[in-house]
Amino acid sequence: MELNEALAKLAELQRKLYAYQAASSSLYLDGTTVAPKDTAEGRGVALGILAGERHKLFSAPEVGELLDFLWARKDELEHPVRRQVEELRRSYAQLTRIPADEYMEYAMLTNEASDVWHRAKEKSDFELFRPVLEKLVAFNIKFAGYYDSTKAPYDALLNEYERGVDMKYLDGFFATLRERIVPLIHAIGEKEQIDDSFLWRPYPVEAQRKFSDYLMEVLGLDRAHCTIGETEHPYTLEFNNKDVRITTNYDEGNVSFSMFSVIHEGGHAKYELGISDDLQYTCLAGGVSMGVHESQSRFYENLIGRSLPFIQAIFPKMREFFPEQLGGVTAEQFYRAVNKAQPSLIRTEADELTYCLHVMVRYEIEKQLIGGTLAVKDVPATWNRLYKEYLGVDVPDDKRGCLQDSHWSGGSFGYFPSYALGSAYGAQMLRNMEQDIDVWGPVSKGDLSQVSNWLREKVHQYGGLMEPADVVKNACGDFDPTVFADYLEKKYSELYGL
Amino acid sequence: MELNEALAKLAELQRKLYAYQAASSSLYLDGTTVAPKDTAEGRGVALGILAGERHKLFSAPEVGELLDFLWARKDELEHPVRRQVEELRRSYAQLTRIPADEYMEYAMLTNEASDVWHRAKEKSDFELFRPVLEKLVAFNIKFAGYYDSTKAPYDALLNEYERGVDMKYLDGFFATLRERIVPLIHAIGEKEQIDDSFLWRPYPVEAQRKFSDYLMEVLGLDRAHCTIGETEHPYTLEFNNKDVRITTNYDEGNVSFSMFSVIHEGGHAKYELGISDDLQYTCLAGGVSMGVHESQSRFYENLIGRSLPFIQAIFPKMREFFPEQLGGVTAEQFYRAVNKAQPSLIRTEADELTYCLHVMVRYEIEKQLIGGTLAVKDVPATWNRLYKEYLGVDVPDDKRGCLQDSHWSGGSFGYFPSYALGSAYGAQMLRNMEQDIDVWGPVSKGDLSQVSNWLREKVHQYGGLMEPADVVKNACGDFDPTVFADYLEKKYSELYGL
Repeated sequence: MELNEALAKLAELQRKLYAYQAASSSLYLDGTTVAPKDTAEGRGVALGILAGERHKLFSAPEVGELLDFLWARKDELEHPVRRQVEELRRSYAQLTRIPADEYMEYAMLTNEASDVWHRAKEKSDFELFRPVLEKLVAFNIKFAGYYDSTKAPYDALLNEYERGVDMKYLDGFFATLRERIVPLIHAIGEKEQIDDSFLWRPYPVEAQRKFSDYLMEVLGLDRAHCTIGETEHPYTLEFNNKDVRITTNYDEGNVSFSMFSVIHEGGHAKYELGISDDLQYTCLAGGVSMGVHESQSRFYENLIGRSLPFIQAIFPKMREFFPEQLGGVTAEQFYRAVNKAQPSLIRTEADELTYCLHVMVRYEIEKQLIGGTLAVKDVPATWNRLYKEYLGVDVPDDKRGCLQDSHWSGGSFGYFPSYALGSAYGAQMLRNMEQDIDVWGPVSKGDLSQVSNWLREKVHQYGGLMEPADVVKNACGDFDPTVFADYLEKKYSELYGL
Repeated sequence: MELNEALAKLAELQRKLYAYQAASSSLYLDGTTVAPKDTAEGRGVALGILAGERHKLFSAPEVGELLDFLWARKDELEHPVRRQVEELRRSYAQLTRIPADEYMEYAMLTNEASDVWHRAKEKSDFELFRPVLEKLVAFNIKFAGYYDSTKAPYDALLNEYERGVDMKYLDGFFATLRERIVPLIHAIGEKEQIDDSFLWRPYPVEAQRKFSDYLMEVLGLDRAHCTIGETEHPYTLEFNNKDVRITTNYDEGNVSFSMFSVIHEGGHAKYELGISDDLQYTCLAGGVSMGVHESQSRFYENLIGRSLPFIQAIFPKMREFFPEQLGGVTAEQFYRAVNKAQPSLIRTEADELTYCLHVMVRYEIEKQLIGGTLAVKDVPATWNRLYKEYLGVDVPDDKRGCLQDSHWSGGSFGYFPSYALGSAYGAQMLRNMEQDIDVWGPVSKGDLSQVSNWLREKVHQYGGLMEPADVVKNACGDFDPTVFADYLEKKYSELYGL
């Protein structure tokens, strides 16, 4: 085989993988937005077959041979191509280590589990979910060995979501956070509570939709390349760097849920839209890791979106959308309301300060589940004990407890820490951004272009060209969780006059 | 190979073809409904690759061997399976007779042509479209030889859209129609024109949307399996018999365009939703031909939708949606307005009577183009001459002339006659339905269930199990175009007091 021929095959392989991904994404998007209610079965058949075809395509021996051939000549490859081969070799090795029958069995299990979880959550019935969760945990322990048998199983899983991260790293990270956050929460508990009652008024969905359009404009999201839809759970879905979709969910009785979900998903979308054209239709075309992705979404949502300058910039316009609801409210009151810190039960509704504690509960449980020191049947009791210990709240039922998240039913163990890591990466990026440019002057005028440009240049454009840790390091130096802790301490001390 | 093994492979092949079709449909649906404006390129890449993968899958030599193996043992196969093998052998032979490079070149050409046609139509500039149209015609003449070299090229193309139909058949059919329709049109021209001015008032889109929902309810379309969307050109898209989508386009200045497009597409949807479960995920799962499909859409649109009993049934409710616009209008006036016969320029806006003349113009041109007796450069002049001759109207520009339809740019030559055939099949089905059941009693009460049941039993359920001509024959005996002519003559004589 000639090198040029091999490179052409490499490009073709990646374009095919892109096409299968686009097909599955399109069916998923349809299923969660406009598809008629009782149509899941036929879509499931198509999705299953496409996943099988993709698996067959990518796990073929010729692919292994092609990648080996190219790797043997890696010194002749340009950097992006070399990186593609490196990434594809890693995925190929992982995929081919999982026996095909186990792969298919697992795909069917997660499909079923999602259904069972939905029903179990609705009925708040953990026992219904328990048998599938047991199977999912067993599969993940086994798969961890396929991923990397030299690592502890949970370390191998963590590495899948954020390469280079392990329990030792996270134990230190979370210990630092707990040490700094818990005293803050206690101190805030002694203070007068912030009034956020005006967030909980009737906000008509039609006006909220227009407000979303406005927010997307402020975020600088080009509607010719990014639309917004409505789904039960908000998400971002990328086809390529010219075609990204975000979704939200409107709560007629609260204005901030959708507002910050739009800004959050908008941050994910900015990342995908900012990835370099050169990487399109290759395996490097998406965001590099869950942690880095969350750093972008939470950057826009919290560091910018929940800042006083940003709220001041958008509040006059916001009052035009909701003149009755916000008539007597000032920008500063609104800023304080959306930053009210209060230990609570639901992760996705948690404030910026207590959020990481929700993640820590899940981290502790996953560590023990995958480590084999916690039986699935004991998850609810452990969950409830940890919520009491970390957040001081009593969990009334499993629906608002260990059944609240979809991740485990989707087979994701080791994903949750990415949320906390992303928040910490973001705080560090902000520190460096502030050293490089005037962040708050333009933001207080509603101009996010400088912020966006900095993030595009330092983070977005690279896609998967670098390792996640290197992307972070490139943007803001060595990872240091105290920067995030300092940020929280400063913000909440000011808010609550500590 | 064992027979059981071969049957399993046959089922697997068809499920894969279904999955590729579902993927492409989903991307197409997305692209025409909710996708951001500037995202066609990335979707095109995915669609092209998926088409290529589907082609590779289906044209593989093993598929030919499998089908030959099964055909050799056809006497042992159950009827539906035997029919699947027969159909797949036909498609396989056709696909493999087209050289792969020509197939790909043609796919790229139609992709480009659609774009060029859009621009040419916008500018009313035939010269812009001419070079691609020349290529499209040349390709179709060549492909006709691959389809069936024993037939005249246009016969081979016609056979693709409506198996068993050829020029001899259509010449007779259209001659009968012309002979009967043209005198009717002349007679109507001498009469006082029907007042349809109230159709052309401002009808707010939001109210039209609600009216569409109501129409779907009357049609008996289960919204859990069929939704309605909005696109530039209305269409029906089926994933399977549990998942069908229709679209419409609202014109703020006219109520009947969207009304009858919803009923028309609803007729297509009824067909797809009525196909037997046993045929799902096989090549027999869709409607059997374009002609039979149009027989269903035009049955609901014209024979039912434009009938007096139907209008009388829905009109009270319709006036609730449009109290100001239809306040002083009676059901009978509305019935007369939506049946106003008037030679015009645009096929898709034509009334039931003159519609077939629009089709005949296209048929004559296609016959000569593919037959090699008409040069592409002479299409506009021929078009304009035939419109004058058949319909008595002067074509002011190519935008409202030979550039109005998308079919040729999509590579479809031989499709148009299906519309007229469908209308004629429908009239014959109505005749037989009236012999079997009380059609108009229930319809006048807004109850279409008996009509739907008859069509499901006689037509829908069979999907592709029978040849198109046999489906028609099974439902209403030997094809006889005078039934359609009689129907038109009776309806329009009454309407205009001839």
